Amino acid sequence: MRYLPGQAHQLPGNRAPMAGHTASHFRFEVEGAVATLTLNRPERKNPLTFESYAELRDLFRALAQADDVKAVVLTGAGENFCSGGDVHDIIGPLTRLDMPGLLAFTRMTGDLVKAMRACPQPIIAAIDGICAGAGAILALSSDMRLGTARSKTAFLFTRVGLAGCDMGACAILPRLIGQGRASELLFTGRSLGGAEAERWGFFNSVSEPDSLLAEARALAGALAAGPTFAHGMTKKMLQQEWNMGVDEAIEAEAQAQAICMATNDFHRAYHAFVAKQKPVFEGD
Amino acid sequence: MRYLPGQAHQLPGNRAPMAGHTASHFRFEVEGAVATLTLNRPERKNPLTFESYAELRDLFRALAQADDVKAVVLTGAGENFCSGGDVHDIIGPLTRLDMPGLLAFTRMTGDLVKAMRACPQPIIAAIDGICAGAGAILALSSDMRLGTARSKTAFLFTRVGLAGCDMGACAILPRLIGQGRASELLFTGRSLGGAEAERWGFFNSVSEPDSLLAEARALAGALAAGPTFAHGMTKKMLQQEWNMGVDEAIEAEAQAQAICMATNDFHRAYHAFVAKQKPVFEGD
Amino acid sequence: MRYLPGQAHQLPGNRAPMAGHTASHFRFEVEGAVATLTLNRPERKNPLTFESYAELRDLFRALAQADDVKAVVLTGAGENFCSGGDVHDIIGPLTRLDMPGLLAFTRMTGDLVKAMRACPQPIIAAIDGICAGAGAILALSSDMRLGTARSKTAFLFTRVGLAGCDMGACAILPRLIGQGRASELLFTGRSLGGAEAERWGFFNSVSEPDSLLAEARALAGALAAGPTFAHGMTKKMLQQEWNMGVDEAIEAEAQAQAICMATNDFHRAYHAFVAKQKPVFEGD
Repeated sequence: MRYLPGQAHQLPGNRAPMAGHTASHFRFEVEGAVATLTLNRPERKNPLTFESYAELRDLFRALAQADDVKAVVLTGAGENFCSGGDVHDIIGPLTRLDMPGLLAFTRMTGDLVKAMRACPQPIIAAIDGICAGAGAILALSSDMRLGTARSKTAFLFTRVGLAGCDMGACAILPRLIGQGRASELLFTGRSLGGAEAERWGFFNSVSEPDSLLAEARALAGALAAGPTFAHGMTKKMLQQEWNMGVDEAIEAEAQAQAICMATNDFHRAYHAFVAKQKPVFEGD
Repeated sequence: MRYLPGQAHQLPGNRAPMAGHTASHFRFEVEGAVATLTLNRPERKNPLTFESYAELRDLFRALAQADDVKAVVLTGAGENFCSGGDVHDIIGPLTRLDMPGLLAFTRMTGDLVKAMRACPQPIIAAIDGICAGAGAILALSSDMRLGTARSKTAFLFTRVGLAGCDMGACAILPRLIGQGRASELLFTGRSLGGAEAERWGFFNSVSEPDSLLAEARALAGALAAGPTFAHGMTKKMLQQEWNMGVDEAIEAEAQAQAICMATNDFHRAYHAFVAKQKPVFEGD
Repeated sequence: MRYLPGQAHQLPGNRAPMAGHTASHFRFEVEGAVATLTLNRPERKNPLTFESYAELRDLFRALAQADDVKAVVLTGAGENFCSGGDVHDIIGPLTRLDMPGLLAFTRMTGDLVKAMRACPQPIIAAIDGICAGAGAILALSSDMRLGTARSKTAFLFTRVGLAGCDMGACAILPRLIGQGRASELLFTGRSLGGAEAERWGFFNSVSEPDSLLAEARALAGALAAGPTFAHGMTKKMLQQEWNMGVDEAIEAEAQAQAICMATNDFHRAYHAFVAKQKPVFEGD
């Protein structure tokens, strides 16, 4: 029996749409199938707090079940991306926590990165101005990064007496820009300018500040109009094969791509090609 | 007892020379110790078919036993490298396969990459024009890539409704160009130009179209004139250590390099140096 | 009970200061908290010998217990970094060793790299002139590399009939410069110029020859004045997470960073910030 692509379906599990969702500690808007998440305390360069960390983690976890959102833009209000953990709201309280309390905090921040990597939607970070500390980690944990020439990205944990190993940085940053450059940024905490960030492969591209958000949304929109089930598989396998051997990764992809060949979108693409039309993907 | 380098030997196992071999679905020529494999349907930009996939897989498997071939050049006829899986010959039939059939196909294509990584000969891809889909994977699975400025490399699986995780791409491409740039190419399917490919480390160099093949053959010839047993060990360990810890990789190399120090080529190099001559390597 | 940062302590285990230590086969000087290790046979471009390999290994092992040294500069005398294993002192004798002897040698050289990666101090290589063979490995095994435009780095093992898999190169070099460029350098043994080395991320920066050592020492000094316990954790995790999955690395960093949040340096940074002062780190 040959494979028959299925009909529109009801997926098992809790599928809660996110359009109309209102966030408490940042802005969250859905337009079409693209969600824009805007860190929004511009007078302080959009720092994170205990509460915003937790809400971000919960939101990215919810996105894993949301089938109305197909791509995410992550940005900051007021010409800055994110200044990281607030000194008064986060660092002060941390100095008064016992060890279980400290670990509960570092695990919460790590859980945010895990949730960003686990949701199937590609995340496009749009980065202008300051992108520091945990803000740099949010950028790093996105799938693609669009920046500006004037932006300054700094993994500055060392400046507050901490290590560069924050929320996965010692694993993820070397895979983006190489072990030597990652070591420099993590040991010194120095700022990486926008042009240098593009040259090193940290930024995918550099935009004018005025057009940055529009370009990030255009990219997100194009991805959302693509075969989004397959995009989710691409994202999953980019994570899943991180520490597989080459042969094991090839077998994993043989299985993952065979699944994608059994989707309606693959059939739609073929039939559109035969009919000399542009395929209209529906994400199933 | 000190180590005594051995005499010319008969290796165990089936050692079938490949010179004189005629391929059915592409051109295969051996000149000196360099094989040139040319995809050869130029009127269609050298697409792959079920048959050519299978023959390529079998040929690279055979090369693992061929001691007359010491390096391979992989190229395409008529100013293009390879347009990937043919829409009519491959994609159409795939839409009519059941799941075991689909997996048989994706495993066959993955087995081609496994065979390219497993044969001891360095593979030099010479890439002009279109290098798309499975063609881009063939380039990626080679050991080095020489391109042209006008070449266009595209991992365009997303354009046909599929995922970027094809034949190992989500594991291999990030190791060449970094996770962020690999994510962009795999999610968007966009074309990578030749200059950009060199800047990102996908191409080792960019040649003029007229001299591309000659330069690839010169590089392959230089490698074939080197210590080819040691080259095979270099290739093996670049694969073998992919997901080892650093300390385990160092021990693995201590063993692998000790093996190479027990070869005649190592002795030849030393004695040539003492005699102020250029060493003549023989690959044993 | 909240966490109380501890008092100055006596660490368990043997803590032997290294200031005043005199090396036999190279120069070793400690100034402030920065050790400078200078390969010092300039008339031969600073080659390595069996004895200098062993002493380097022992010295980096000793540094793991030395709490007076917080950063290391590794360099060569007389406008060259290191020409690698000496042909007469090393390669000749190797051709007369049996297999256990060969493996004892390759394990000794590998142990040097393991010791460089295991000591908590960041190692800054200052590279001018020739940086070849095992010298290139010493550069590769450092945490950061400052070079000069005229420097020439060559993983030239293939030139003496050996494989590129020497002392961890097939694992470490691809993580710095990508798999394709690493393959080229390891298969061909060709020299990498200084500008190219910076462009590829092998060098962190390129200096004028006259200021190279001063810049390396300034960087080492800045790191030594930082939160050195945290730096040691950054170095440990950059190694430790090499082949972890992303989620496992995130949990590992949650634990590692929680440890750093329980150090006095973290508290010093916070209190200095509140007092609008520059923090003075003490490494505990």
